[in-house]
Amino acid sequence: MSVNAPQGFVAAGLACGIKASGAPDLALVATDDGRPVPAAGVFTGNLAAAAPVSLSRAHLDETGGQAAAVIISSGNANAATGERGLGDAQIMCALVGEGLGVATTDVLICQTGLIGIPLPMTPIESGIPALVTARAAGRVAAQAAATAIMTTDVVRKEIVVQGRGFIVGGMAKGAAMLAPNMATMLAVLTTDAACEPAELKTALVAAVDATFNRMTVDGCTSTNDTVLVLASGRAETPNDPEALVDALTEACQALARMMAADAEGGSRVVHVIVAGAGSDDEAHRAARKVADSNLVKCSLNGEDPYWGRVVSELGSAGVAFDMGRVEVAYGDTVVCRRGVAADHDDKAVRMHMALAHVEIRCHLGLGTGTAAVMGVDLGHGYIDENRTTS
Amino acid sequence: MSVNAPQGFVAAGLACGIKASGAPDLALVATDDGRPVPAAGVFTGNLAAAAPVSLSRAHLDETGGQAAAVIISSGNANAATGERGLGDAQIMCALVGEGLGVATTDVLICQTGLIGIPLPMTPIESGIPALVTARAAGRVAAQAAATAIMTTDVVRKEIVVQGRGFIVGGMAKGAAMLAPNMATMLAVLTTDAACEPAELKTALVAAVDATFNRMTVDGCTSTNDTVLVLASGRAETPNDPEALVDALTEACQALARMMAADAEGGSRVVHVIVAGAGSDDEAHRAARKVADSNLVKCSLNGEDPYWGRVVSELGSAGVAFDMGRVEVAYGDTVVCRRGVAADHDDKAVRMHMALAHVEIRCHLGLGTGTAAVMGVDLGHGYIDENRTTS
Repeated sequence: MSVNAPQGFVAAGLACGIKASGAPDLALVATDDGRPVPAAGVFTGNLAAAAPVSLSRAHLDETGGQAAAVIISSGNANAATGERGLGDAQIMCALVGEGLGVATTDVLICQTGLIGIPLPMTPIESGIPALVTARAAGRVAAQAAATAIMTTDVVRKEIVVQGRGFIVGGMAKGAAMLAPNMATMLAVLTTDAACEPAELKTALVAAVDATFNRMTVDGCTSTNDTVLVLASGRAETPNDPEALVDALTEACQALARMMAADAEGGSRVVHVIVAGAGSDDEAHRAARKVADSNLVKCSLNGEDPYWGRVVSELGSAGVAFDMGRVEVAYGDTVVCRRGVAADHDDKAVRMHMALAHVEIRCHLGLGTGTAAVMGVDLGHGYIDENRTTS
Repeated sequence: MSVNAPQGFVAAGLACGIKASGAPDLALVATDDGRPVPAAGVFTGNLAAAAPVSLSRAHLDETGGQAAAVIISSGNANAATGERGLGDAQIMCALVGEGLGVATTDVLICQTGLIGIPLPMTPIESGIPALVTARAAGRVAAQAAATAIMTTDVVRKEIVVQGRGFIVGGMAKGAAMLAPNMATMLAVLTTDAACEPAELKTALVAAVDATFNRMTVDGCTSTNDTVLVLASGRAETPNDPEALVDALTEACQALARMMAADAEGGSRVVHVIVAGAGSDDEAHRAARKVADSNLVKCSLNGEDPYWGRVVSELGSAGVAFDMGRVEVAYGDTVVCRRGVAADHDDKAVRMHMALAHVEIRCHLGLGTGTAAVMGVDLGHGYIDENRTTS
């Protein structure tokens, strides 16, 4: 169960033929009664945003924050496809709307895959009615949907979180370009909590900022990143904005961890934790600079505790920095203190570096700013995955 | 010939024992009569700057821009070494000063290698007197110096440029972390042109900005980057600031190209040329974003003309961008026009992608800003070189 775990939602997924491999490539999440409910989205900051991003933004603006369904396709990003791409996305939303008996503007759309190639509309146009018909409650339908949004993902990403009297469900895809601002990732969340559209938007922004926006795989920002949430209100608990933020954050964090663990070519996840910065924002920038460093990432791949690269990245992060105050630890073992090598237990460090989750803890010794960013190592697999698209 | 090609300079290089491999690791460039001459430097912007960077900056400040010698060591960066590192660098300058009969402040220092390890001073202290004794004119001495500054470089990097009535000579090292602001690169330039220290500084800044600061290997900024120039005035031509900028730029550009071609694990150099941007600065940021993109670099490694990634990077470069106006070409072949795929000659593109120097030409269609940034692809070799330091 994932997106149809909260009361009021159904899901579906199937292979319509966008992917030459014949793998599933079309998914639907919808309210079970076809009624629009409060909805919100967070989208890529890329100015080369794809057609589905522009259209979902426009639909949420027009409806004032409601939706009855989300259509998601994988295998083709419908990005850099111009007016034709926008028209194709509109046709997809209209077909879903027809099938469900809702307005086109009540349908949101997410797409992921290759950039610059026109959408193959014939298989999509025959696939959507079958998808609408297949929508259902239950685990099988949820898995079908979560499978159909995968691209280079190896693992299907689903989550259900218990909130205070309500449930949050979610599915996501993403295994590269996960930074900053969630590059090439899609996530669709649902909840049966009650809330106003504006509350939902505020809660989603807070959850995304604390989770998806704190991870990086390769520092690239995609044309298609989208996180959507629909709230049915069926749990009939009173509005509780704080509980909603907590549950959405928990769901997003779990999905983010699944994405980092599934990163293309990555063999381990790194948690860069910066404390003692001039501000939380400076801590975030410093942590991201370390997590995005190809040299640090190579060291992580080689299980090499070369803290000199960490210090070098901290010093060039564009934040307040005093070499004489900096401390670096791998896990609990401090390897650099006051900017120079610290005597330490080599074996403890080596053992930590071999873990699936490595921690690089940095203290700048300047203030109270803290932040954590999740990243991955850089190995041959990343290059192998990305050197050709054919 | 390189740094001792202009009149008034001698050079030397030898192995003193910093490198466990026994490879050359200590180099000297000095005026042939031991007199200080106008000198200038450009240094890393990294706030974790190494001891030699701090000391060379201080010496140039104290002397008002003059120097009689530059001592360069490789194998140990003397970075993240605290007060002890600064004292060690001072001892090195003092030993050179003693040997040449000049003040310690008239000696500049560059160091490159691993970060966070105290300098092995015993071999250095016996090496410097031998190095001073070995200083000489001629090709052999110049080659010895240029060899002794190499780290992971495969190719020795030397250049001589004929200016208007004067000569510029130079040597450099650098094969990774070459960005922004010249990460982990050292270059020592000499000239027999006549100029004031302030003129020399202005000329060097202009030359570096147009060359070393327009290249990137992995986006990392080193703790030790330094470009130094000494001007003997022996050519006895009148001061000609413009000609000096031109010749220094030509020398730096040639060294920069050598560095890019020698980049760790790189199989080809890419020239990202952005035109039609809102300003030259925006063009530079956009070009750097493309050149620093791991996804674009993987495509280059695979000779895959996936322009969608180029457009995606342009759209997230933080500069003015209109998808409907963007054009992308590989070499002379336009593959994307007005933000969508353009019919083109596939074979011409494939042939261009296989070259040792690939051009990605982008036109944003917005203004007159232009810039070019030189980068490299990302292959297994980069990871193999950097995954462990041992």
